[in-house]
Amino acid sequence: MQKTNRTKVKRIPVRGQYDIESIYSILDAHFLCHIGFIHEDYPVVIPTLYGRYGDRLYIHGATTSRLLKSLQEGIEISLSVTLVDGLVLARSAFHHSMNYRSVVLFGVAQLVTDPEEKFKALKAVSDQIIAGRWEEVRLPNEKELKATTVLSIPIHEASAKVRTGPPVDDKPDYDLDVWAGVVPLKMTADFPIPDPLLKEQIKVSKSIEKYYRQ
Amino acid sequence: MQKTNRTKVKRIPVRGQYDIESIYSILDAHFLCHIGFIHEDYPVVIPTLYGRYGDRLYIHGATTSRLLKSLQEGIEISLSVTLVDGLVLARSAFHHSMNYRSVVLFGVAQLVTDPEEKFKALKAVSDQIIAGRWEEVRLPNEKELKATTVLSIPIHEASAKVRTGPPVDDKPDYDLDVWAGVVPLKMTADFPIPDPLLKEQIKVSKSIEKYYRQ
Repeated sequence: MQKTNRTKVKRIPVRGQYDIESIYSILDAHFLCHIGFIHEDYPVVIPTLYGRYGDRLYIHGATTSRLLKSLQEGIEISLSVTLVDGLVLARSAFHHSMNYRSVVLFGVAQLVTDPEEKFKALKAVSDQIIAGRWEEVRLPNEKELKATTVLSIPIHEASAKVRTGPPVDDKPDYDLDVWAGVVPLKMTADFPIPDPLLKEQIKVSKSIEKYYRQ
Repeated sequence: MQKTNRTKVKRIPVRGQYDIESIYSILDAHFLCHIGFIHEDYPVVIPTLYGRYGDRLYIHGATTSRLLKSLQEGIEISLSVTLVDGLVLARSAFHHSMNYRSVVLFGVAQLVTDPEEKFKALKAVSDQIIAGRWEEVRLPNEKELKATTVLSIPIHEASAKVRTGPPVDDKPDYDLDVWAGVVPLKMTADFPIPDPLLKEQIKVSKSIEKYYRQ
């Protein structure tokens, strides 16, 4: 991907990655992004779910939401996806850090009006959260589709930033009697909690079983 | 906390919380925020670590970073902290959701120039990540303090948004033979990985032991 002035990683450039595979693999490993836009002269950052389909990200929400009302006017957005991989504990306070994989993206969000693309986009968001669930549930009807706004954001101006590995301390500090290393962090799933209103004898579905085996 | 036009939760208002305790408890449960600001007419969203001390959030970084260079000029920011608590799996695609706790905050970031406040702020960021670590490591020296920019953001215009509990489906859908419920998600820590350059016989420190007992 072409570096632009906006996406070029200036701080610690060695952490910057611009190949599409790195960017997609980070986007595909999460489902929550933080999207920023300008609303009446001030910046707004809001968390929202997303789905990737090809070279686009899709976000969705109620037609009435302020975020989507603003975005569908075609204003510029910035979007960030961050995976926290670990706490990097150095011998000095200064060299403490975090292992992470993040993508920062710039673009203009477009309203999806084509019904087929809209449907595909909603499936992409669903697949992003839990693959196979879309095939198990009641799909959106006309009324629900009408009540949902979908925006499409091209992945054309993006960069990834990644930190891995142990802490890096100043040379003299390696002599200190301080434990140093990494505490790995990850998102984990607990046992599924059935809806109290679930009909008896309904077992956890395949998509959920599979989710736990990942 | 006073609701403003910017912080009032308009979509699903019942999820909005404005009391300081709810807002602080969400901020205190994480250490990573996404901060948005306007840079040369376009929005930028960047992930960064933070620490809360009283009614302020502190963020830090290299004096040379674009983010902090922009912010210290006193421009407006929006900041979001989001904790993902679970996937909400409904019987219909439309009613899928996420359980989460999030804070969205607006304000003007100010450069911290007072050395005492700067030190306190850096400790707050360290405590936010892992309590007690600050007391175990070599603290920042003059040179390191000079190389670090710290910004202070007042928690005066903020709101929380929280979703908990099972999915809510349309009445007729409760008859469907589809498993519904919540898959709880949380951030968990794996065993600490010692730095390959760690001196022999140094054991994991108290702060890290305590971190795992939480």
